[in-house]
Amino acid sequence: MTSSTVAQYTALYRDNLLNDVLPFWQRFSPDREHGGFFTCLDRTGEVYDTDKFIWLQARQVWTFSMLYNRVGSLFPDQKADWLGMAQLGADFLQKHGRAEDGSWYFSTTRDGKPLVQPYNIFSDCFATMAFGQLSLATGRDEYAHLAESTFRQILARRDNPKGAWNKAVSGTRPLKNFALPMILCNLALEIEPLLDKPLVEQTIDECIHEVMTVFFDPDLGLIRENVTPDGRMSDSFEGRLLNPGHAIEAMWFSMDLAVRRGDRALVDKAVQITLDTLTYAWDTDFGGILYFMDASGHPPQQLEWDQKLWWVHVETLISLLKGYQLTGNQACWEWFERVHAYTWSHFPDPINGEWFGYLNRRGEVLLPLKGGKWKGCYHVPRGLYQCWQVLENLQNL
Amino acid sequence: MTSSTVAQYTALYRDNLLNDVLPFWQRFSPDREHGGFFTCLDRTGEVYDTDKFIWLQARQVWTFSMLYNRVGSLFPDQKADWLGMAQLGADFLQKHGRAEDGSWYFSTTRDGKPLVQPYNIFSDCFATMAFGQLSLATGRDEYAHLAESTFRQILARRDNPKGAWNKAVSGTRPLKNFALPMILCNLALEIEPLLDKPLVEQTIDECIHEVMTVFFDPDLGLIRENVTPDGRMSDSFEGRLLNPGHAIEAMWFSMDLAVRRGDRALVDKAVQITLDTLTYAWDTDFGGILYFMDASGHPPQQLEWDQKLWWVHVETLISLLKGYQLTGNQACWEWFERVHAYTWSHFPDPINGEWFGYLNRRGEVLLPLKGGKWKGCYHVPRGLYQCWQVLENLQNL
Repeated sequence: MTSSTVAQYTALYRDNLLNDVLPFWQRFSPDREHGGFFTCLDRTGEVYDTDKFIWLQARQVWTFSMLYNRVGSLFPDQKADWLGMAQLGADFLQKHGRAEDGSWYFSTTRDGKPLVQPYNIFSDCFATMAFGQLSLATGRDEYAHLAESTFRQILARRDNPKGAWNKAVSGTRPLKNFALPMILCNLALEIEPLLDKPLVEQTIDECIHEVMTVFFDPDLGLIRENVTPDGRMSDSFEGRLLNPGHAIEAMWFSMDLAVRRGDRALVDKAVQITLDTLTYAWDTDFGGILYFMDASGHPPQQLEWDQKLWWVHVETLISLLKGYQLTGNQACWEWFERVHAYTWSHFPDPINGEWFGYLNRRGEVLLPLKGGKWKGCYHVPRGLYQCWQVLENLQNL
Repeated sequence: MTSSTVAQYTALYRDNLLNDVLPFWQRFSPDREHGGFFTCLDRTGEVYDTDKFIWLQARQVWTFSMLYNRVGSLFPDQKADWLGMAQLGADFLQKHGRAEDGSWYFSTTRDGKPLVQPYNIFSDCFATMAFGQLSLATGRDEYAHLAESTFRQILARRDNPKGAWNKAVSGTRPLKNFALPMILCNLALEIEPLLDKPLVEQTIDECIHEVMTVFFDPDLGLIRENVTPDGRMSDSFEGRLLNPGHAIEAMWFSMDLAVRRGDRALVDKAVQITLDTLTYAWDTDFGGILYFMDASGHPPQQLEWDQKLWWVHVETLISLLKGYQLTGNQACWEWFERVHAYTWSHFPDPINGEWFGYLNRRGEVLLPLKGGKWKGCYHVPRGLYQCWQVLENLQNL
């Protein structure tokens, strides 16, 4: 790598964020009539469905609040707009997002009538992140209180996150899923200023243990998506499942925690898992990272297993850059350049802006959308921001 | 078409059923230790997962019982084996398949411990079909009683089939789904001998009305997968969803009911919907029938929307042949030959026998399996049997 290469990358990630992706969402997503955001946007930005998914409402509030907090001072003419976007989503969420017991619905109609029950604990996770960042941006106690009380509800629900909607017969084959401890790693840092120090430290301890020891299978050298409560492998569809993007995303969360604790061994392990997962999941036929795999090589249940998803690639870029920044490991940089080349030649839309989300195995656009039920204003801007920051730091070395 | 063409087709469908598909399941699926069937079979027939899915256990019982009842007398050296297969599955189902309230679990472990709760009413539908056919095969009252009592439970649950596992907030956007009335069309004929005549006629009346009037959208000329309780379009992901294979499968159920009632107008409407759905859903780029579509042309939620599934093609062959047999409509025969050519050049496995189930848009094998969580011994043998029968009838004209 040369310093001019790094400078070019830095400009690319920063400019795509500031001049393409954020403006796309600022222009097309606000619902000025009912509040909140439209997230089902076609390739040109036109709204094709008006339902409001709480994951995506909260994630967009988080994105704009986070940028306001972290880099708002660099962009004085943007700051107020960013905070206004966050506020638009937060008002909608406060008014319509919660069920009576304080948990967060999965989705509502355009005007805020609840559509899908709060069966999904990740709505609560993203609401916590959203109101945590917004409380920092505004200094308003009510947002801090909302983030903190939602966080405590997540901890209370964590052993049975699906509650009454859990279809598994209890006791026959108990399994726990990787997503929650993985997100708690990130959440604990997100709302650290709002929590007592012992609760933060305890949560971080538990999450690092879960992610790096319980879900990591040393024989396989990879992270499993589901394991038994005591961390063993279950020879079942769920137990054999690998979700490479999830595992790699968790590695940059772990690197952030490792930096905070000055834990070099944790950095090294996270870098190794990133590289090993990538080697395992890279599609040598068509390029890109496969979405799902079966650890024993059997057919997975997920029919979409061979597709190439935007968030998998964005999260991988972050982990590789952080890994390189923290260790200087050349393999991280080489993989970064390979994943970067695939990502930038396939996902961003040069005609209408923003990124496509779903490609088939060959890298052709599978769904010509910029947003939908699961893709919103989150992974792309977060990834661009994270990569920009690391690259800028590398440039200044 | 010439009579020698029809004779060749007849032999192809019959021989593939008798000499390839049935022997594959007879050889590889029986679990002689714990009873029931393995359905997760790789391309060579090897078992890659041992869970027992009640849909597939019941469907296989139905397949072997049905063939025993309808054509067993033609194959005296096969009959006993077929009944033995049905009995193996039925014993497992009776012993392990039902929850305390009489509804059927979704899945169990290999040795019959319940894994997934009875959230899915189609387990009950397929159990009804299985024990209905088995009661005819054996003359045993306990099977007839089990089929009939399960059928009455389905009718009692039909307005809220997901029960406590329903994640929709009641009242906001009530929708009903096409699958249940569609299957009830078929079920009513399946277990007709076990029911009072008025209940049969009433069920058939309701189902024909639901399928051909309520779910059929006359402006679109197609069947929607979900509609409002009073049969209107809902402009939502669910309301815009088309499932062409489902719609076309329901058309041969409707043709069977039309024949029973001597209702020529119903035959004609079913044939028209078959042809219109096929024209709409045929992939003009790569051939084959698309799995899911959005009626307004928006991106569907289903990431697997462009895949080519075995059951969609098998069911289409049945509807086209029955349509041709009943109306002589040349378009049915032309479409049959086109779908036949696609199907037989893509799905059957000439090396290890049986059929692949899941192809990508280009018709390449996506999952190299013969059975899994959803594919078992059902659509292929049922379709081969149905096509064989119609073709033999055409040959004798």
